[in-house]
Order: sequence, then C-alpha cells, then structure tokens
Amino acid sequence: MTNKIPVGILGATGTVGQRFIQLLEQHPWFEVAWLAASDRSAGKKYSDAATWRLPTPIPSTVAKLVVNSAAPAKDTPKLVFAALDATAAKEIEPAFADAGCAVVSNSSAFRMAEDVPLVIPEVNADHTALIKTQKWYKKNGGFMVTNPNCSAIGLVMALGPLHRRFGVEKIFVATMQAVSGAGYPGVPSLDIVGNVIPYIANEEPKMEAESRKLLGTFNGDHVVPAETVLSAHCNRVAVEDGHTESVSMKLGTQASAEEIINTWNEFRCQPQKLGLPSAPEQPVYYDPAPDRPQPRLDRDRGRGMSAVVGRLRPCNIFDWRFTVLSHNTIRGAAGAAILNGELLKAQGYLA
Amino acid sequence: MTNKIPVGILGATGTVGQRFIQLLEQHPWFEVAWLAASDRSAGKKYSDAATWRLPTPIPSTVAKLVVNSAAPAKDTPKLVFAALDATAAKEIEPAFADAGCAVVSNSSAFRMAEDVPLVIPEVNADHTALIKTQKWYKKNGGFMVTNPNCSAIGLVMALGPLHRRFGVEKIFVATMQAVSGAGYPGVPSLDIVGNVIPYIANEEPKMEAESRKLLGTFNGDHVVPAETVLSAHCNRVAVEDGHTESVSMKLGTQASAEEIINTWNEFRCQPQKLGLPSAPEQPVYYDPAPDRPQPRLDRDRGRGMSAVVGRLRPCNIFDWRFTVLSHNTIRGAAGAAILNGELLKAQGYLA
Amino acid sequence: MTNKIPVGILGATGTVGQRFIQLLEQHPWFEVAWLAASDRSAGKKYSDAATWRLPTPIPSTVAKLVVNSAAPAKDTPKLVFAALDATAAKEIEPAFADAGCAVVSNSSAFRMAEDVPLVIPEVNADHTALIKTQKWYKKNGGFMVTNPNCSAIGLVMALGPLHRRFGVEKIFVATMQAVSGAGYPGVPSLDIVGNVIPYIANEEPKMEAESRKLLGTFNGDHVVPAETVLSAHCNRVAVEDGHTESVSMKLGTQASAEEIINTWNEFRCQPQKLGLPSAPEQPVYYDPAPDRPQPRLDRDRGRGMSAVVGRLRPCNIFDWRFTVLSHNTIRGAAGAAILNGELLKAQGYLA
Amino acid sequence: MTNKIPVGILGATGTVGQRFIQLLEQHPWFEVAWLAASDRSAGKKYSDAATWRLPTPIPSTVAKLVVNSAAPAKDTPKLVFAALDATAAKEIEPAFADAGCAVVSNSSAFRMAEDVPLVIPEVNADHTALIKTQKWYKKNGGFMVTNPNCSAIGLVMALGPLHRRFGVEKIFVATMQAVSGAGYPGVPSLDIVGNVIPYIANEEPKMEAESRKLLGTFNGDHVVPAETVLSAHCNRVAVEDGHTESVSMKLGTQASAEEIINTWNEFRCQPQKLGLPSAPEQPVYYDPAPDRPQPRLDRDRGRGMSAVVGRLRPCNIFDWRFTVLSHNTIRGAAGAAILNGELLKAQGYLA
Repeated sequence: MTNKIPVGILGATGTVGQRFIQLLEQHPWFEVAWLAASDRSAGKKYSDAATWRLPTPIPSTVAKLVVNSAAPAKDTPKLVFAALDATAAKEIEPAFADAGCAVVSNSSAFRMAEDVPLVIPEVNADHTALIKTQKWYKKNGGFMVTNPNCSAIGLVMALGPLHRRFGVEKIFVATMQAVSGAGYPGVPSLDIVGNVIPYIANEEPKMEAESRKLLGTFNGDHVVPAETVLSAHCNRVAVEDGHTESVSMKLGTQASAEEIINTWNEFRCQPQKLGLPSAPEQPVYYDPAPDRPQPRLDRDRGRGMSAVVGRLRPCNIFDWRFTVLSHNTIRGAAGAAILNGELLKAQGYLA
Repeated sequence: MTNKIPVGILGATGTVGQRFIQLLEQHPWFEVAWLAASDRSAGKKYSDAATWRLPTPIPSTVAKLVVNSAAPAKDTPKLVFAALDATAAKEIEPAFADAGCAVVSNSSAFRMAEDVPLVIPEVNADHTALIKTQKWYKKNGGFMVTNPNCSAIGLVMALGPLHRRFGVEKIFVATMQAVSGAGYPGVPSLDIVGNVIPYIANEEPKMEAESRKLLGTFNGDHVVPAETVLSAHCNRVAVEDGHTESVSMKLGTQASAEEIINTWNEFRCQPQKLGLPSAPEQPVYYDPAPDRPQPRLDRDRGRGMSAVVGRLRPCNIFDWRFTVLSHNTIRGAAGAAILNGELLKAQGYLA
Repeated sequence: MTNKIPVGILGATGTVGQRFIQLLEQHPWFEVAWLAASDRSAGKKYSDAATWRLPTPIPSTVAKLVVNSAAPAKDTPKLVFAALDATAAKEIEPAFADAGCAVVSNSSAFRMAEDVPLVIPEVNADHTALIKTQKWYKKNGGFMVTNPNCSAIGLVMALGPLHRRFGVEKIFVATMQAVSGAGYPGVPSLDIVGNVIPYIANEEPKMEAESRKLLGTFNGDHVVPAETVLSAHCNRVAVEDGHTESVSMKLGTQASAEEIINTWNEFRCQPQKLGLPSAPEQPVYYDPAPDRPQPRLDRDRGRGMSAVVGRLRPCNIFDWRFTVLSHNTIRGAAGAAILNGELLKAQGYLA
Repeated sequence: MTNKIPVGILGATGTVGQRFIQLLEQHPWFEVAWLAASDRSAGKKYSDAATWRLPTPIPSTVAKLVVNSAAPAKDTPKLVFAALDATAAKEIEPAFADAGCAVVSNSSAFRMAEDVPLVIPEVNADHTALIKTQKWYKKNGGFMVTNPNCSAIGLVMALGPLHRRFGVEKIFVATMQAVSGAGYPGVPSLDIVGNVIPYIANEEPKMEAESRKLLGTFNGDHVVPAETVLSAHCNRVAVEDGHTESVSMKLGTQASAEEIINTWNEFRCQPQKLGLPSAPEQPVYYDPAPDRPQPRLDRDRGRGMSAVVGRLRPCNIFDWRFTVLSHNTIRGAAGAAILNGELLKAQGYLA
C-alpha cells in the first residue's frame, strides 16, 4: 500500500490508454488503481484484454487489474484519465464528471465546450479556473479538463511564449504527422508505406480553433480566444511517433531572431515553477543545426514532453519561418493529460 | 538506321541520366546516340559503367554504347540533354553550347542566368526566345535551355493557368519531397526511414526565385519576373518518387472554387497544341476526392507528366488552400527536359 | 458490343478484385460484364461502391456497372473470377459452381480439396483434368479451379522446372512478404513502419501444402502430392508489392549452377506454347547481379507475371541457395487467376 | 576527477563510435578520456568533428574533448574500444596492441585470427585466455579482443545455451537486418524505402564462420570451432535498428519445446554471475506471443543487451524453427564491446 493518489484510466486498452499506463508506472504522485474499457474487455485481466503495443512491458501491478466497464462505480477513483474516442467520450465522460470524478481527458469531444478548460500547463494554466463554472463542480466537485489535439500542442508550446511577449497575429502551418496519432489499427500500411496522405479528417479546424482557445485569455468568467488567425494544412507521413510542422508567423511587434530564440530557450512557466513531476525542465528547445528538428532524433527531448524548434529564418510573406516538433503520443496525448492532472493537484482541485 | 534526331546525354550514368535513357527508349523524334559521363566511366560500355536503378531494363541499343568523357567531340549530336550536378554543369555545359550544341539542361547552374530560358512548355513556352540573346547562338547556333527544380515544377504548373487568369500574388508552400530528388546515393536511409528531414540545402531560395522567373513575362529582350511573393518550406520524406506540396494562395482577382477547378482541368497550352510527344493530354488534373493527390497513387498521371491537384478549400488567411503533386524525376527532371527539347524542335531552334 | 467472352468478378471491390478489373481492362479474350460484392455494395454503381486504390483509373466501362449481391443470377456469365476472403468463398463459390459457372478462384478455401485443381499453368497445366471429377461438372458443366497463395507461387515457379529435371527433395524458405498481400485495410501501419512482423496467420502450412500439391502428379484420377519436404518461415516487411524469398534447396540429382540457371532461363511451358495472352514471354528470369532480385526493381518483369531469381550459390547444408521474387498481387493473385482462366479457355473447358 | 578507468575510442565519430560514447556516459567503471578518428577530424573538438546522429545529446564531458589522430600516443589509455572499418582496423588496431593497449574491437579485421578471442561473454567467456598467446601480450601486456558481427550475435546468444545442453548440429538462418548495421551514410534510401536488398557483402561467410568459432571450445592453446554447420541468407530491410532472423535448427539430442524455452529463459552466465554493469539481467527472453519478436517492440529488452526469441515450433526438415531478434548497434556492436571490456576487467586482464 502506498500513499499515492489512486487514478483510473478510461479507454485503458487503446494506444493512448497504454501510454497512460506506461507513463504512470513510476509516477511519484499517482498510481493506476482502476481501469475501464469497452464491454468487450470488461471483466478480463488487463494483460488479457489489451494488445500491448509498447516496447516496455506492462507494469506488473497493472497487468493483473480487472478491467471495468466504462461507467462510474463505487471504487472509481476521484481522478480519472480518459483516452476514449470522441464518440464514446461524448457519452461517458459527463457520466463520470456527474459522479464527482475529475475527468482529465485527451478526447476532442468537449475541448471547445464553453465551460471546459483546454489546457497546456506551460501556456494557460490559469484557464483551469473555468472548472468552477461547471455544473458538476457546483454539484459535487466533479469536473472535466482537456488537453489539445496532438497537432496543436507542439505549435502552441512554441507560440505561447512568443504570443505573450510579441503577439502572434497570423500563422501558416503545414503538418507532417506520425501514424501513431491515428491510434490502432489506424492508418492501413498500404496507404502510408512510401506515401503521404494529405488529409486527416477534421484535423485542420480542430488545430485552428484549439490554438486560438489555448492562446486566449480567461476573463474571470470565460475564455476569450486569441485573435490569431491560423491556416493549417494537415498531412500524414510514414513516421512512427513525432509530429513535424512547418510554420510561418506574423508577430504583433517586431522581434529579432535572437529575441525569439532566447524567448524559447528561457521560457519556464507554472509546471516548472510548481515542480510538476512530468514537466520538462525546459519546455521549448531551439536547435541551431540547419536540419533539425527531426522526429527520430528529437521527439524524446525532455522525456518526450518538450517541443523542439529549429530553422528560424525570415519569411518572405510574414515575419519568420520555423519548424517545430513534438512527440504526439507523449506530449500530444497521455503525457499532456498527466501534466494536466499534476497541475490540478498542485492547484488544489483534487482535494 | 532511323530518321530520328540523334541526341546526347551528359551525365548519362546518374539517376536523371538513366531516366533520360528510359524515357527516350521509344521516342518518336529522338534517339540516344551519344553518352558522356565522368572520367571514371569514360571508355566503358554503358551497361558496365552505369549502376542501373530503374525497374525497366537498359534499352539494348544504349547498353552497348561506349561512354565518352564530358567534352564536346566531333560526333557529339547537336541536341544534348544534360543531367549533371550543378558544379560539373557550371564548367561543362557552356563548353557544349560554345561548340554549337543545343544544351537542354536539368541542372540548376544556369537557370537564373539572365539570358538562359527557364521553361515549362505549358507555362512559358515563349521564354525560349531568350536563346537569341545568347552569345553562343549568335556565334554558331549553340545555346542553353533549362527546366526548373523538381519542387518548383508541380507548383508552377498549378499556378500558371491561375496566374494568367486571376493573378497569383502570394504563395505559402510546404513541400514533402521524395528521396529520388536527391539522386543516388543521395539521402542515407538512416536519415529518412521513419523520419522527416525539414531541410534541403538551397531548395527554398531556388524554388522561390525559379517560380517567379517561370511566371514572369518575356518583354522581347529579357524576362521580367512575376511579382508573386513566395515563402517555401522544403521537407524530405520517405517517399520514393513524387513531391507533395501544401499550398495557400492569394489571388489578384477573386475566383470561385468552380472557376479555379475548371481553369485547371481545361488548361491546355503549347505542348498540347503542338502535339509534342511527351506532352500530357491534360497538364493539370483536379481530383475531387478528399484525400488526394497522394504520391503512390497519382504520380504517374499523364505518364508522370501531369500535375495532380486536390483539396481546394478556402484559406483563413489568403484565398485558397490546395495540395499539388508531381513526379519529381519524370515531370520534375528528365521528362521536363525532353519536353523542352521537343518544344525547341517544334519552334525550329534545332534546325 | 464485342465478341469477347463476358466474365464476372466476385469480390469486385476489394484489393484483388480491383486488380482483376485493372488487368482485364485491355484483355483480348475477356471482358468484365458482371460484378458482385458484399451486400453493403450491392445495388451501387461500381465507382461508388469501391474505394479504388490503384494508380490507374477505373476502366470507364466498369465504373458504371451496378454491383450485384454475391449470388448466381440469370445474367451471371459462365466464367467468374473470385476474389473473396476464405470464409465468404467457402459458401459462395460452390453456389456459383453449382449454378453452372466456371469459378476461377484466388481464395484458399478449396485449394486443398481433393477434386479441385490448384494450378500454375507453367507448372501443372494438366491438373485441370481434375475438373472432370467434380460433381458440378458432371451435373451442368460448372466447376472450380484455384491458384495458390501469393507466397507459394513465386517459389513453385522457380522450383517447377528444376523439379521436373532434377527432382527437388527439400526446401527451406524464409519469406519477406509485401503488405499488399494482406489486402486492405490489412496491416496497420503502426505494425510495419520501421518494423518486421515474423508471422502471417496460417501462411506457413498453406505455403508448404500447396507447393507439394502444385509439384505433384495427376494420375488420371487424383493428384499425388510431390514428396518434397518444405519448411517455411513467413515474415511481413514494409514493402508495397513483391514477395522476396530466401531459399535453400536439396535436389534429387546433382546439377551445376550453369544447368540450373539455364533450366530457369530456358523454361517455357503450356502458357507460352498456347500463346495465352497473360503469359509472360519468359516465366523465370535469372539475374546475375549480386544483389538482385529486389521487389522495387524486379516485381514488374514480364508485366508482373514472371518470377525473378538471383544469388544462386552453394548451400553449406543442402545443394543450392537462391533468392526468388514475384509480384504478389499480379502473379500471386489476380494475374494468376486470369492466366488460369485463359488456360481453361485454351483447354476447352469454357465451351 | 573520478576513480573510473579511462578509456579511449578509436573511430569515435562514426555510428558505432557514437554508440560507445552514448553507452559509456553513465558507466560505473569506465570513463571516456581519449578519442581518435580519421585525419579529417583530428585536432577538432569532438562536437565539431562528429555529425552526432543519436537522439540523446553528446555527453558534455566528451563534447569538448579534442579528437586525436588514430595512432597510439603518450596519453592513450590502456583500454581502447575500436569502432573502425575493417580496412582501417587492419593497420591501426595492431599498432595500439603493440603499444601496450587492450584493444577491444568491433571490427571484423581480426575476428578470425587464430590468437584473437572472438567473445560473447555469455557464451564463451573462457576464450579470452587466447590473449595469453598473443605476441603483444607477451611483450608488454597489449592485446586484442573482438566481438562478432551484428548478425551472428543474436543467433549465437540463442544457440549458446542450447548447444551446451543439447548440441546444435545444423542451422538454417535467414536474416532481415536493419539499416544501421551498414553505418552512416550506409545504405542509400533509394535502395531500401519500400524495398528489400537480398545481399550484404561478405555477411554470410562472416556469420557462418564466426558462429562456429563462438560456439567452439578453447582447448588450452587454441579454439576448436564447433562442428555446427550453418547456411545463412542475409537480407537488408527498411528497419532502423534490430536484426530479425528466421532459424531452423537440428539438435544433437532431442529436446522438447518446454526444455528449450526453459533453457533460454533460465540461461545465466559469466556476465550475470560477475555482475558486469552492461550485462542484461536475462540474456535471452522467450516471448510466447504468436507474432514476436519484432524489432520496434523488442530490440530494447535488457537495455538493448538481450536477445528475444519467439515462435518456437517444429520444423518439417530439422527439429525446431524459431525467430530471434537483437539490437544490432547495442548488443551487436558497441554494447558487445563494452561488455567484453567489462569481462576483461573482471578477469584481471586490464591490471
């Protein structure tokens, strides 16, 4: 028996669910105590229910847990990480919030809901105050917090500190996204071996809208989205993990390359100040090499929780061009939600 | 013995040189009669000198040709296709023009030279008139004509007909370029398997400057580049053949989606009117499927000589977003030069 | 209206069904006249029902055909090519044979049935005589003929002429199979990008048993399988098309490298003698280069209908080692069945 | 200043050299103190000389070391790890041994030399006694020890414990080897994206001969190779790291599947008993899943130092078939040499 906070995982058998379990294995604050998945898995031991796809073995304490069906139960912990697809999330997550759980979700279902915080702790930790406007919170302390789409998170980590200092007015972004972002089985290999798919359903509007909400301002009552205009082009490439993005950016006030690079490298924020266990020491790294960042070489910076930026150079149309990369299933999914959970704990919402 | 026009190939053993030989195998007008390569290959039979990397066999008539060193000789044909790297081209190509050859080059060495036409026959066939300003032409009828970089060609084929009708003012483009674009041995497999390289040396400035020259106007004396402003982001991906490009575009006058799509699909130009043998029946195809074009499925449209466009949709910043794809070693290299050679023949420059 | 023989396609919307339609587009004897697929597709126009995945467009005459449900109907042609998965085939194929159709199947469902010929026309064209033992044939002229698994076909094309001349006693074979062999969606990209899967369900026993039947002898009444012993190791690799196989072989009588290579290169058989339209001019090519065959470079030899062999060298345990490659969706699936159909026509079974 | 043993790296800038530096970063016994590379790099700071290709950063203490030319110098440490190509090794390694160094080499140059130990510490730790027969050792304590080719090491780790208990008489093995095994730049991407290369120069004879030496017996004076007969087929596939091998095996005495699996799982040897820091806790893992081992999922077992075996099943020709996988640049190269260095320290050869 430990003193750690017990946590539940919704959608525990999927790709992101497995990442939650992997990343929480040695977590200093949290301990996986409860699992739920679809009815097909319910009642089975986790090691039997899941087709484990990660290179590290299933943590032994989790392997023997019995999977529950995806409904709140007596023994459901207060803190629940959710890795459900959007359709399932729409039904299931509110049920857990309504039962008093703190639902920390990776799903897109409620990201744009008015009273649901969409949070990257380095960028908009104060948005969690939206929780207090949720009906569940008022009723019994239950609530819901979300993290953004895997394509938005690396971009907004790079833009966050610049927006605060210089204002970010316009963004062109073209992504080259890894196949793991589509889950499992996800993209058929015939579609991607030696190929590019220039389309990911709903990804561009999500990326654009979520980025504006993340860069927005909490005005004590609701979030006013940033006025930044984004135009996204989302592509899938034959990469296992790590989303690479080509960006052109117009700033509100002029900034030199040196100022921008320093802003990135020196950027520290709530997660670093609060000492959140999953927070990377340095959220954004600027790599001066001419051909970086690259997914295979850079996705694991900061244990997969940092964004890596490179190739800052003038843009012929806007002010600056650069490339940004982040690990889509760690920083862009399970790791993002865990960091949100840590932030909520530090902010006192789990009490 | 045939009545075909004999042609020479400079750099015959390399990747593009091999494509020249493959594409010319059944050519109705031209016949490969003379080969040159580096001193390492000179004196050898072509089948011994080249490490043939194409799926179709070496044409038997070419296999037995003896490779010459890369200097003009008595038996060098008037028409010479050049597939040299830029450094070699800088020295060797002028020597052939000076010897009276029509050098139709795929190299970047002289593309931006004031008196050298940079030509896509569908877009700016009239630029070949620059030939008459070349000192070699005045001396003995020798001259030099070039085709653009493989990343510029698909883009400009899509922009050409739009520019003529609506004006293209600004272009943001992010490329995902195939490894064959780097020649052989080219990109080490360790750099690209499961990876993206967000950098190709000199590619972005080339793509930007060449596009402006291609869309420019020949004023009877020299070419005035188009005022189109381009901002390019060039990336390498694990695709064998076919460059995919995400584009945002600002037009001079408003155009509806239907007008743009019709402009593409109905676009025919000099190569089609002149019946040039390598000209695709339809230079630009618009594919209405939501997830096209894709390199594996679309690069061979029009025997690799067409550009395929898809995903036309409004842009939040400029007017329109779309994706364009073209075959980089056919339309973007050897096929482009052969079509230039055919144009020159039809225009009477080879007489 | 043409004089061609109308043919039907069962499973017309799948990967192999699409290949049938593509390969039959210009066929001199056959013409696609009738399509069937699952109930989900039945009643739709083919171009709406199929997610076409081939680089060449849907033939226009086929695009507008309406898809039938998979049951014999009045207008079902006599000759039906079947591209069903094994479970569906088990029910559906006998129904068509029972209705008097000549079912030429790519499925594994009946390959090992006692009275069903399993045929590679170059290897065992005489096995089609088994047709006369089928109850359907006796009843109304309907029958069923099959082609082997895509992993067996290249191997047996290489072994066939050697077995006839020298006897093949033992075979150790390790395959590296393309993802298209698994159909669509087939292998998830997360499983194969930068990876190898050392397992394909049921493939090894199929490959072993089918090879013995193919190399066996028709004794006037049934097929006596060859006594060749095979040990297969089947692996999946990140290749689009083309199965590569490493083989060690023990012969019944000694043969020199020269004898073996000549046996391969000179091998011609029924399909070549009968002038079957899909027959490759040369069924087996030996490539003397040290590093061939390779899927990307060699799968299209003989329009995808030839097997390419290379690296013949002594084996430390058996007699000889070599590598063999064949195109798994052409020679290993749709092309194999079409060649079987042509053989049946030439042999008079379609009258 | 630490109490660690200073070590040198020959060929420090290459792929394997970089792995040495990475793996030695936190080593409890050894400390990188001296680097050498080609003349092109000599005199430069390591961070300037090397094109670092690993996802973890260059250790800061190594980054600032100045690279030496590849000749023994006054400050060359006693223990030198060598990551030279075979041609360079043939000249350079003896010079270091002659200067009194303990050369622990990954090169093939001297692996088969009569008096040079070829060692996998789990398999034949006693072969290091060959050192005493080396002329250098007799002169001044210098000597040379090698580790096998990356294709042999995983196979022999699996065979070692079986050979000891049951005798291994015959082995068929077909490999699917990762591109990192060819170093950098190594395999051109055009050769391997979507392709298989069925040939690696000299690999098959190396794999066969080295395996016999590794499984052989040190008779007090020299090594008598095992009588095991091997027939190897070596292939290159589009995998970053991790060699997968399909194996058929004939044993000297019969063994059940259970006995074989237990022999693997329970196998512990000198490195484990001596507590060598790089030794994996369990050298060989048997994975009972039907589709394992796979390079992406299993190469990092035991921090990349374990071999993973799966798919044990009867062979139609020999006794058993199975698949084995090991990490080619860790267990198959730098990690192997470091473990050899640790063994030599534990055995007292570095005193």
